[in-house]
Amino acid sequence: MKSSTKYLHFKTKKKIEFVHITHEIEKFLSESGVQEGLVLVNPMHITSAVIINDDEEGLKRDYIRILQKLVPYNDTYEHNVGEDNAAAHIWRQFMGHQVVLPITKGKLDLGTWEEVFYCEFDGQREKRVLIKIIGE
Amino acid sequence: MKSSTKYLHFKTKKKIEFVHITHEIEKFLSESGVQEGLVLVNPMHITSAVIINDDEEGLKRDYIRILQKLVPYNDTYEHNVGEDNAAAHIWRQFMGHQVVLPITKGKLDLGTWEEVFYCEFDGQREKRVLIKIIGE
Amino acid sequence: MKSSTKYLHFKTKKKIEFVHITHEIEKFLSESGVQEGLVLVNPMHITSAVIINDDEEGLKRDYIRILQKLVPYNDTYEHNVGEDNAAAHIWRQFMGHQVVLPITKGKLDLGTWEEVFYCEFDGQREKRVLIKIIGE
Repeated sequence: MKSSTKYLHFKTKKKIEFVHITHEIEKFLSESGVQEGLVLVNPMHITSAVIINDDEEGLKRDYIRILQKLVPYNDTYEHNVGEDNAAAHIWRQFMGHQVVLPITKGKLDLGTWEEVFYCEFDGQREKRVLIKIIGE
Repeated sequence: MKSSTKYLHFKTKKKIEFVHITHEIEKFLSESGVQEGLVLVNPMHITSAVIINDDEEGLKRDYIRILQKLVPYNDTYEHNVGEDNAAAHIWRQFMGHQVVLPITKGKLDLGTWEEVFYCEFDGQREKRVLIKIIGE
Repeated sequence: MKSSTKYLHFKTKKKIEFVHITHEIEKFLSESGVQEGLVLVNPMHITSAVIINDDEEGLKRDYIRILQKLVPYNDTYEHNVGEDNAAAHIWRQFMGHQVVLPITKGKLDLGTWEEVFYCEFDGQREKRVLIKIIGE
């Protein structure tokens, strides 16, 4: 079994931002030489998520609008004592916080419209995402 | 390490439909001969989800009713320019879009009530789900 | 490839309760001797979730308050015929029901604030969580 680990670093300009990371994962997979296996992509912070969805700007705004409606960022939360990011903790759970990707014949085995995003919900500071490949 | 990959094909009769797929995964696992490992079950489309839950019809209707209440299908979405499926993209995130299943002694190592479903939220067209087994 | 499987047993005092399980997973990982790989942590029941988030009491109450607001436990559900736990089935989906953890150099490769919790939404009875390690 082979394994490879990489850490992506982010410091988004905005507090809430979607960063497309499919190509970085593909590049790292190619370097790893793994032909068959799995890739775990996991944010190492608890106010962000990694998701698979469409690379379409309107949809990204729809996500934020719905999350704001259901779990308003500036509402009152018990967690927000010296913090203002309780909603970000909750949003990241509702969005599904991590993904596992399949590797087939050396490539990410994704459908046509599956794209991977780092979803920052409390940005403007240093964050990391772990990519872990296992297989052979 | 062994690996096996299979694609399930779906074209549901209804736009929104739950399809029970536990037995298909079990059958493929049995064919693979893997005794210990993991199975990734991932929809290759971004308006559907794979979940583990109860095979109970009332609950399936409860899921849809709650999703409709929180993220109405026929509401206004920025994504819905020439599309009508923005809510389906959001529903699949809220439901948790994919699952990883454990394999122990050649079987899916699931609890009594754990059943796997393909959740179609924008059906009546060709869709695929990837099953990736790794282990030995 | 090595693999190790363990089942954690829970019977929470309260119906709704968060149980911190990071240390139990770390201990089991250490016993397994696996240096590089993945850990699946999956509840074997469908009214509970395993999540990664902050070990902060206010946030745990915020989660429950939001879930109660969006999917009230004591509302009317079709599933609740001889049952009262439909909301628990839905909550566990919205929270993301399972996690996969990375193993690097024999340790869980988590960020500073990433902690693993078993989230019981229908407790006061016997429940199990499976931990499956694969790697080498």
